[in-house]
Amino acid sequence: MTVELAREALHESVSDPASASMNFLNEVSARFPDAVSLAAGRPYEGFHTTDDLDRYLKTYLAHLEELGLSHEQRQRQLLQYGRTNGTIGALIARMLAVDEGIEVPEQAVMVTAGCQEAMVIALRGLCAGPDDVVLAVEPCYVGLTGAARLLGVEVVPVPESADGLDPETVLEVARAVRASGRRPRALYLVPSFANPSGASMPVPARRRLLDVAAEADLLILEDDPYGLFGLDDEPRPALKALDTRQRVIYLGSFAKSCFPGARVGFLVADQTVVDADGRRSLLAEELSTVKSLLTVNTSPVAQALIGGFLIEADYSLRAAGQQKIRFYRNNLRTLLAALERCFADHPRVRWNAPDGGFFAVVDVPLTADAELLEVSGRDYGVLWTPMSFFYSNGGGRRSIRLSCSALAPEQIEEGVRRLAALVRDRSEPEPAVAR
Amino acid sequence: MTVELAREALHESVSDPASASMNFLNEVSARFPDAVSLAAGRPYEGFHTTDDLDRYLKTYLAHLEELGLSHEQRQRQLLQYGRTNGTIGALIARMLAVDEGIEVPEQAVMVTAGCQEAMVIALRGLCAGPDDVVLAVEPCYVGLTGAARLLGVEVVPVPESADGLDPETVLEVARAVRASGRRPRALYLVPSFANPSGASMPVPARRRLLDVAAEADLLILEDDPYGLFGLDDEPRPALKALDTRQRVIYLGSFAKSCFPGARVGFLVADQTVVDADGRRSLLAEELSTVKSLLTVNTSPVAQALIGGFLIEADYSLRAAGQQKIRFYRNNLRTLLAALERCFADHPRVRWNAPDGGFFAVVDVPLTADAELLEVSGRDYGVLWTPMSFFYSNGGGRRSIRLSCSALAPEQIEEGVRRLAALVRDRSEPEPAVAR
Repeated sequence: MTVELAREALHESVSDPASASMNFLNEVSARFPDAVSLAAGRPYEGFHTTDDLDRYLKTYLAHLEELGLSHEQRQRQLLQYGRTNGTIGALIARMLAVDEGIEVPEQAVMVTAGCQEAMVIALRGLCAGPDDVVLAVEPCYVGLTGAARLLGVEVVPVPESADGLDPETVLEVARAVRASGRRPRALYLVPSFANPSGASMPVPARRRLLDVAAEADLLILEDDPYGLFGLDDEPRPALKALDTRQRVIYLGSFAKSCFPGARVGFLVADQTVVDADGRRSLLAEELSTVKSLLTVNTSPVAQALIGGFLIEADYSLRAAGQQKIRFYRNNLRTLLAALERCFADHPRVRWNAPDGGFFAVVDVPLTADAELLEVSGRDYGVLWTPMSFFYSNGGGRRSIRLSCSALAPEQIEEGVRRLAALVRDRSEPEPAVAR
Repeated sequence: MTVELAREALHESVSDPASASMNFLNEVSARFPDAVSLAAGRPYEGFHTTDDLDRYLKTYLAHLEELGLSHEQRQRQLLQYGRTNGTIGALIARMLAVDEGIEVPEQAVMVTAGCQEAMVIALRGLCAGPDDVVLAVEPCYVGLTGAARLLGVEVVPVPESADGLDPETVLEVARAVRASGRRPRALYLVPSFANPSGASMPVPARRRLLDVAAEADLLILEDDPYGLFGLDDEPRPALKALDTRQRVIYLGSFAKSCFPGARVGFLVADQTVVDADGRRSLLAEELSTVKSLLTVNTSPVAQALIGGFLIEADYSLRAAGQQKIRFYRNNLRTLLAALERCFADHPRVRWNAPDGGFFAVVDVPLTADAELLEVSGRDYGVLWTPMSFFYSNGGGRRSIRLSCSALAPEQIEEGVRRLAALVRDRSEPEPAVAR
């Protein structure tokens, strides 16, 4: 008899609903390959080629030689097992100082197998028992809620406003959680150009959120994959750049600023940990145990690719990434202009106007669910993401996320035209006004 | 006020005792850099250079071109986000058929960020609730016990004999676990040249273990990092090669057969999963959700390196790895000969004679703990691993693990001479024979 396993007997993370939604989205995309995908949040593919890879490696190896490493040491660093927290922490710390004004010791940086692993490590380290919960902005990036489900950590949603998270709401939710006997350990958010909402927090709200974190004894998990891609050059300091009290764990990604195929991300955790003997260390160093139990260390070859890229960029992704920044600005402006053109005369369609990033949200007068998405792909040739995928309890049912990162401008325009046809044909009748 | 976190308030996996032991070992190694390390189980460094990396990439890219992928598709495969379960599953499946006689569809292969991630994924997927436990050989590789601690999965030890795991002991333990109201979901072991013991299971015991797995309704997690490195060419079939009933999940590593710096491993899970609607899929496909929540996908560049290596090896690590195989054989023979030379006249020192792999175990007439290791490094210039690090409850206190993988033969001989001096000087007096 061969084995048959019942799906219900496997861990609930195998059936993670957000992942199931994303799988559905991928299936729909595969079935309608000619549809314009305003669903895909991946970066545009025109900025790097495989011909660059060998040069990044050589740049990094030359850097190691300049540092005085022997041939043997250089070989070992790329090919052997390596330091759990990675070898390019110093380069990342330098980039953070130059680009973000974040000043941290290199020992506070852990290099991870993408930002997703950084989330898992931070959640695992901080949430010690069943009463430890994590607060998270809602709507929320599905990677965070999925990571929490994997670890059995409860997520308490904090609803987002048009201006991102309201610090007072965070304080209320944290107090309510504590009053219920649970311990709110951390708050997850994307303060700049959030995925999925596109919302950004104003600077005063960022400062107030740091006060709230201290008042409520919360750590903040700041996810910042899109921070480079503002529509203008106005400074939007990362929470970590304002964080004088070490309340913020910063989660970083190179998927958008460099390319996804390296699968290199990082976390910055400069908090002090004190053990029973009074010995002090940095949280990033303590979390290295968790990292070692997940993936041992991040591929040193992949780290060398990113290291070479950072060196070539002279440690400024902002300065070296001007081509990318211009591209994404133009795409977001194209998306917002197309929405204006196609929906300005439709009083029941509303959308937000993000200051940057890859996403905007459109409220539509119809139920934007998986069934409608299928119709949209098949009959209208356009794909998008139901916002309901990013809510835990039935929110976002008449909203859709549009992404503009992976397309050329003319595709964005065509995609919005097709979306307008869908909305025109399928809008539900306006409800009679009750007296 | 800046944050101070109490270590006790962090998750217990941060303080994983085995990882703490390994950190101690690394610290001792760093403090005594001139000591000969019979502790390090890492592979020898002379087989690959960074000059090979670009060639592996080009070989893989040429392979994709032969498969008919356009320039754009090839770029996308290496640089963009990719399929969760990886892109080199077909190449790995072909290698497994050629080298191991393991015949599985490529969809049953998941590429992972090293074998450690494969363990985490398998444990997470299989252990659904607090009553689901995993049985594990004891002494046990610390990566498995650590992964279980990270996930809150209980590990029940199954003591190993000189010939590896005894299937009847496995059956007894599985029955006792079930009688206690818990569900034994899987059994972890390294059937060939185990880490840390060096023990291997005879072929009849392997067959019986598969029967036991069926009788006790267990899956087997077969970890096989050293299978290539037998002292002779006698076939030692992997459990997965004998597995006609799909009881075995095979965990693979390229760290020893290729090089560790790629951080590429894999799992093979060809079990059938049936969901409530009767839809059937392969376990590897179901586990892709868990993989996506840990690391999204394994670095496609790292996969391309291993892919190029497999293609250059014509899908046979055994045939192409003859230089490595000869090297490790010679090292293990050197270790065993040195033990014979140095300890043959010492009636209270015993050691095993593994048929292959990187490790041997020596029983010594003294307590081989962290304190003795420190003395050994400082005063005798030799490092080794206390076997107690691999036991959950106080076993292995007078045994040490010797590794011979990372050294040249003359270093192995010198290391064993130094160890003999330590044992000669520090042996505890023989206990008086009680009447």
